[in-house]
Order: sequence, then C-alpha cells, then structure tokens
Amino acid sequence: MTGLFLTLEGGDGSGKSTQSALLTEWLAEQGRTVVHAREPGGTELGLELREIILHRRGYIAPRAEALLYAADRAHNVATVVRPALERGDIVIQDRYLDSSVAYQGAGRVLATDEVRELSLWATEGLLPHLTVLLDLDAATGRSRLDASRTRYDRLEAEAEAFHTRVRDAYRALADAEPERFLVLDATRPVEELQRSIRDRVSALLATLTA
Amino acid sequence: MTGLFLTLEGGDGSGKSTQSALLTEWLAEQGRTVVHAREPGGTELGLELREIILHRRGYIAPRAEALLYAADRAHNVATVVRPALERGDIVIQDRYLDSSVAYQGAGRVLATDEVRELSLWATEGLLPHLTVLLDLDAATGRSRLDASRTRYDRLEAEAEAFHTRVRDAYRALADAEPERFLVLDATRPVEELQRSIRDRVSALLATLTA
Repeated sequence: MTGLFLTLEGGDGSGKSTQSALLTEWLAEQGRTVVHAREPGGTELGLELREIILHRRGYIAPRAEALLYAADRAHNVATVVRPALERGDIVIQDRYLDSSVAYQGAGRVLATDEVRELSLWATEGLLPHLTVLLDLDAATGRSRLDASRTRYDRLEAEAEAFHTRVRDAYRALADAEPERFLVLDATRPVEELQRSIRDRVSALLATLTA
Repeated sequence: MTGLFLTLEGGDGSGKSTQSALLTEWLAEQGRTVVHAREPGGTELGLELREIILHRRGYIAPRAEALLYAADRAHNVATVVRPALERGDIVIQDRYLDSSVAYQGAGRVLATDEVRELSLWATEGLLPHLTVLLDLDAATGRSRLDASRTRYDRLEAEAEAFHTRVRDAYRALADAEPERFLVLDATRPVEELQRSIRDRVSALLATLTA
C-alpha cells in the first residue's frame, strides 16, 4: 500500500470536521487525491448500521453494539479505505478504532483490549499512519455542541462524567502509542491547530516519497 | 442457570422446524415452558439485521457479514436465551454458532476457528447442552426446498457444491464435539427422528433434575 491513512479522534465538538476540511484543502492544492471516510456510516451498508446504532429506540446489548460498530468498520475498510490506499490516495477519516476503544472503555462494560482486538480482526490489522487527537474537556465540548445541535444521538446524550471518561481513555491510548498519535489542545485557535497537523503530515509525506 | 439450551442445525430443507415443533409439543405436554428462538432474526434488532444479511442487494465484506451474524447472536443470547435459561425454561433454537462456522467454513473465506471465537465472544461462551444435527445431502435438501419455496435468500441461492461443503463442515463439527451433538440421518421418517431426539432430551432432563 502506497497511500496514507489519517484519522481524527476526539469528543463531539472538538473540531474534527473543521480540521479535516482544512487539511483536505491543503492536500488538494498540492495535487493529492484525498478520500474522505467516516465511521460509523461511511458506506451504504454503514448508513443502515449507523441508523441502528445511534438512533434506534430500545436496548441494544453491549456486545451486539460493539459488533455492529466492528461490522461497519470491516465493510468501510474493505470497500473504501483499503482500495483508496492501494491506489496511493490519502484517506482522512473521522473516527476509527480508537473511538470504539475510548467510548466502550468509558462505558466500562466491555474490556477495552477485547474491543480493540475485535476492530483489528474486522480490519485485518489496519492501523492509521497518523491519528490526530483533538483533546478537549467534556464541559467545553458540550457547550460547543449545545450551540450547534437540536437533537442528540444516543452517545451525545450521555452525562458529562461519561464524556470525561472518554477523554481520559483517549489520552491513555495516545500515551500507549506516542508515534501514531498527535495530541493537540482543541481550545487553541483553528489555524494554529491546522499548522501543527500540516507539519506532521508533511513529515509523513516526505518519508513516503523518500 | 437451571434451564436447558437445545439447538437444531442442518441445511435448508433438513426438517429443523418440523422437529422443533414436535419437540415443543412433547415438552409442553410435560408442563415444561419452552422458549423458541432463532438466528438470525430472533429479536426485533435481529430482524433488522436479518433483512440486511439475507436480503440486502450489493456486496457485503465477508468480515462485516460475520460480525453482523455475531451482533445478532450477542443480542439474542443477552435478551432472549440467557434470561430464559435463568428462569429455568427450555430454549429450542433454530441455528446457532455451528451455522456460522459451517457456512463460513463452506465459503472458505474466513478461518473457521476465528468465526467460532467471534461467536463465543459475542455470547460470553454460551454453548448448547445439546445440538441436533439433521444431516442431509445437498441435492435432497435442495429438492425439498424447491417444493416449498418461491424465493431464495442469499445463502439458499448458492450452488450445490457450496451446500455440500456446508454439510461436510457440520459433520466435522459434530465429530469434534460428540458429547454435544446428536447426528441424525434426516431422510429417516419424521416420527423416528423425533423419537431419537426425545430420548436424548429425556436423558438430559433426568441429569438436570437429579
């Protein structure tokens, strides 16, 4: 595979979409082909699963939920991400396996190492070249979200303590894999954050073409 | 858990529904509470997943498919099977993890031990007390099915060679766990088959109440 797989992680309201759009713009200016991907719901099958996972009424058993996320991921990687990487494209993806580990870890229902193993089985072990973590405390994330949304999905509606545990879980993941992660303080100005991301992506592109 | 978990396995047309109905009748006569279950699609969530797995148009990545079956199974076990067993009921289920292993094994796309591990993770290791395998060659199964159906689902529509591999995979599973499996020649008369099943279930019930 000759492409580059970049993922953006962080709580809701941390600015993933904004940074992803700015990064795409910059890469496109350099003549790079960028493929946008997201989970859950980055494929047609995924959209059906996303609707079930995020908006379905009624109880979903925790293991069933984890398996649905993994199914979405398996299909997204097999049909979108891997083909793009094989063509040499740059894939920028909103959320990937770290989201599953952080949110499940925050829920504390399932063992995080098992959730990670499930994702790695689903994707045949595909890890991103770079994962940008937009780190933000739960209260700030929530106030940003309140300003922009009228309807919360099942996870957004969780209490602040849950989102604090999500943040802690993300930081633990970044500590465990410092080479893959770029951790940024999401309260910094948008342009500054983008500069840090571009610096890191530039370095990665240089190693690829070297 | 004080209940009994019985599963019926075998190709389409092998007579699982008939044997299940007769067994239920007999157990009900003895005052037993029987819960019917099936996979895929034994729950409301499962019905949505069953529709996707069996009738959706378009490609589904093999790992995504296996994960969807496992999600259906996780939800069915957590919300139907385990609560029933904890109440002391008898659960008779049409298809369980052996179906996944046999059909995936027949497809030869995924490693069967991985598919089995996935199911065991989904169900927290729940294995049936007894699995009745209604063994039938593919051609006979198909001719029975042709007589009763006007529309085939994605798996039924596979070629005969596929269904022959399913049968072989089932028999290999039964050989590996002879204590759990009761293998019956599905071409025998319905009443004879039922008698063999009742004998085995009687013995199991005796050990439970002993």
